[in-house]
Amino acid sequence: MMKSNERQTAEGFLYTDMYQLTMAQLYYREGIHEQEALFDYFFRSYPDYGQHQAGYCIFAGLAWLLDWLEDLQIHPEEIAFLAGQKGSTGKPLFEPDFLAWLERAQPFSELTIRAVPEGRVVHPNVPIVVVEGPLLWAQILETSLLNHLNYQTLIATKASRMRDCGQERMLLEFGLRRGPDRGASAGGRAALIGGADFSSNVGLSKIMGLEPKGTHAHSMVQVFISSGGTELDAFKAYAEVYPDDCLLLVDTIDTLESGIPNAIKVFKELRQNGHKPVGIRLDSGDLAFLSLQARKMLDEAGFPDTIIVLSNQLDELVIWQIATQIQAEASSCHLDPDHVLDKLVYGVGTRLIASEGQPALDGVYKLVSIKQEGVWTPAIKISENPDKIINPGYKHVWRAYDNRGKATVDILSMEDENPGEMEKINLHHPTEHAVSRTLMRDEIERIEPLLETVWQDGKALIETPSLEEMRLNRLNDVSCLDPGVRRIINPHVYHISLTRKLWELKQGLVSSLS
Amino acid sequence: MMKSNERQTAEGFLYTDMYQLTMAQLYYREGIHEQEALFDYFFRSYPDYGQHQAGYCIFAGLAWLLDWLEDLQIHPEEIAFLAGQKGSTGKPLFEPDFLAWLERAQPFSELTIRAVPEGRVVHPNVPIVVVEGPLLWAQILETSLLNHLNYQTLIATKASRMRDCGQERMLLEFGLRRGPDRGASAGGRAALIGGADFSSNVGLSKIMGLEPKGTHAHSMVQVFISSGGTELDAFKAYAEVYPDDCLLLVDTIDTLESGIPNAIKVFKELRQNGHKPVGIRLDSGDLAFLSLQARKMLDEAGFPDTIIVLSNQLDELVIWQIATQIQAEASSCHLDPDHVLDKLVYGVGTRLIASEGQPALDGVYKLVSIKQEGVWTPAIKISENPDKIINPGYKHVWRAYDNRGKATVDILSMEDENPGEMEKINLHHPTEHAVSRTLMRDEIERIEPLLETVWQDGKALIETPSLEEMRLNRLNDVSCLDPGVRRIINPHVYHISLTRKLWELKQGLVSSLS
Repeated sequence: MMKSNERQTAEGFLYTDMYQLTMAQLYYREGIHEQEALFDYFFRSYPDYGQHQAGYCIFAGLAWLLDWLEDLQIHPEEIAFLAGQKGSTGKPLFEPDFLAWLERAQPFSELTIRAVPEGRVVHPNVPIVVVEGPLLWAQILETSLLNHLNYQTLIATKASRMRDCGQERMLLEFGLRRGPDRGASAGGRAALIGGADFSSNVGLSKIMGLEPKGTHAHSMVQVFISSGGTELDAFKAYAEVYPDDCLLLVDTIDTLESGIPNAIKVFKELRQNGHKPVGIRLDSGDLAFLSLQARKMLDEAGFPDTIIVLSNQLDELVIWQIATQIQAEASSCHLDPDHVLDKLVYGVGTRLIASEGQPALDGVYKLVSIKQEGVWTPAIKISENPDKIINPGYKHVWRAYDNRGKATVDILSMEDENPGEMEKINLHHPTEHAVSRTLMRDEIERIEPLLETVWQDGKALIETPSLEEMRLNRLNDVSCLDPGVRRIINPHVYHISLTRKLWELKQGLVSSLS
Repeated sequence: MMKSNERQTAEGFLYTDMYQLTMAQLYYREGIHEQEALFDYFFRSYPDYGQHQAGYCIFAGLAWLLDWLEDLQIHPEEIAFLAGQKGSTGKPLFEPDFLAWLERAQPFSELTIRAVPEGRVVHPNVPIVVVEGPLLWAQILETSLLNHLNYQTLIATKASRMRDCGQERMLLEFGLRRGPDRGASAGGRAALIGGADFSSNVGLSKIMGLEPKGTHAHSMVQVFISSGGTELDAFKAYAEVYPDDCLLLVDTIDTLESGIPNAIKVFKELRQNGHKPVGIRLDSGDLAFLSLQARKMLDEAGFPDTIIVLSNQLDELVIWQIATQIQAEASSCHLDPDHVLDKLVYGVGTRLIASEGQPALDGVYKLVSIKQEGVWTPAIKISENPDKIINPGYKHVWRAYDNRGKATVDILSMEDENPGEMEKINLHHPTEHAVSRTLMRDEIERIEPLLETVWQDGKALIETPSLEEMRLNRLNDVSCLDPGVRRIINPHVYHISLTRKLWELKQGLVSSLS
């Protein structure tokens, strides 16, 4: 971990890419640093995990970005570092007048930020955060904004998939040890927003207002064995210290031959003394098969209420396979599948915190407009790849729900348009010329704007949302998705459209540049 | 970013998994919390990126772990949080006597830590860090140790592969925006140890004592175009502000038709005014093809010394392909391939900071011995998977070099063995019964111990190594690898062996448990 005195330096105002600062000086020199600009944050494609793909994302990370903004001050030490940067000829890269201006500035205080609330479902090419204000500050913000939002959105999305595959049964986040240094705190937070009930991370749980969860490790059993004792001695010792919270890891020696029989012995003793055992944890082997065998053994011993925590390289596919196999095979073991599944808890570590299969979200932050003499002038960036051409201008973002209450399309409109007031909405595919359709008002139950203002005049306009609120956002939004969009493999593609007016603006700009 | 007051809470003593603390209380209750224990940190397998695999890793992260240890204190607030944790019956999980003991303790001060120096090549199943001391503290340390070392080692390894594929040509780290929240600082550090020359991350560069590097973004060109200007106007403005550091991004409109011709115009003006242009950056399209075309255009315009920075989803395979293609095709463009390659700079972002293909290292921390009445008693954990059976006991770790000076085998020996003094060394494969060999002393140039003591009596025993020192460690070690081990696809497997005595100890323990 970085030394604390280094942290202020490395993760404050200088938590950015060098080119933001060289561009900032150029804008200053050109006298356009205070010109109003508009940048959109969006991602270009859903995470693709190789064998499986996301059909939606869960947005997360905003509150920590706003905290960073609120805490931010420019310190003399930071200015001194910039003053010491030299170009190829040995002359300073940054000139004194610019640095003096920077040192006097209230960084980011003149920006207005609109954003989708955390926990909500989001889709590609739809602005999730829109930053408006002086060009210089909107530009410098890019790096930190992307850093805060890309990773948490990636992890919240992965957690939501795991939760969905576990059929909303309990999910625990165990990723700290395999997480990316202190990024593990952000990853843990995103996991808790996206689908995890609790985390093993004690410090994170404290700041999130949750109880940290955990059992014990193999090392505890090893300690007893190495000291001449047995697995049973280790279990007895644990039960003695935690008689009402006894959850035993049963695979140190042999799950079916040693671990579970020993756990049952201890559970019987606990019961005789008036305690209720909690359950067992399985951390190796064929977890579907072992879950059924363990359930049978525990039930037959009179412990149908005990839980079985599963861990060891779980991801959404593994969870889905385990649940599917138990559903199919429980009856052949004379077990009720729902009973088995209801008592399962999924403990996920590496593959959640590292987003196995797709370890980064391709979120970008693009200039879409510049204010010229009081009028927003759309900016365009073309590309040989049509998917990379931005959607220009000052826009509004809407979500339309059909008469079943399902989200049917996210619509990007121009600033002066309100699709909710249109009788029919002409919708254009963002890049395919030939693809358009008309949505009639009576096909739609409601249309809602997705963005709210979250930062203005140098402070956050919203309270930090509670974990419950962000989780409710996710639950509501995921339940409004078509089941095909939620499918974990080969999901149905959710529609993103531009209004005709925005489409025509985009085409006009592209042809003016080509 | 987490609020600063929350950071102390979340990333100090409570930066651990809950079960470490419940086990700690159990050890305390059993009176074995101060029993001497020994834990090994090692990883089980090289990163496997799917299409390609690592044949070695570069160790990184140790200095930041030691910094964390040195900074650590237990605060009343942390104890209060633990005191507030309740079990299923509502009774506190942690009892007052244990918490009082904890609050009085000097955390981790009685541990001794031995470790491989950062930047060195490391291999699977070989202890990289060995922690010795009171069971309770060695146990609690697990989570933070793994968190600090796994990610940095993963990223240093990826960086080393990219560097190797770029034939040691300049590599820039651009990953902050796609990095895992503040884990990006650690990832950037590891990249700088493993192979990157510089980083775009300003704050990180400051604490690492480097100049941050960067050019400009598409947005700068867009600003000029949206304001009625042109790409050429943008380039001219940049050249005016940075006449001696002019590196232009040439793909905003059309690389060959617009960007490079405009850059050349600006470079000619610079030259007329006595300045030396730096070069261009290519961020899209076929980078191998465009590098050759751009080189030709720049050379013909009289700028053979300008550099070409490549970016856009580079990883080791892409770099390797670009270099290979340029080597093969340069002459058909009437270019010297070495001239083209020598002027290339690789800018790597997402795929380095996220370790695309394999986003986590499977590093583990396992109890290997417990001291009983003054004698180290080896601990074992068996598994259905032989690769997961630990190598028990108090061990030494050695690396043997053959007469070509190449590293030939890493050897795990028992505490009282020194392979350097053996006439012949009987080496056993860690898991395969049938695989053993004898290494004669005269086949070996030298044998070196890999571990050094880095932490004792509550403080670091080593100075924080300089970046130069860690980079030199990597360079030396990588140059001592057989080229087959460095191969990026399907590398040759480096040998890891146990001495016969250690092998026999392991077999004895396994059979005693089976």
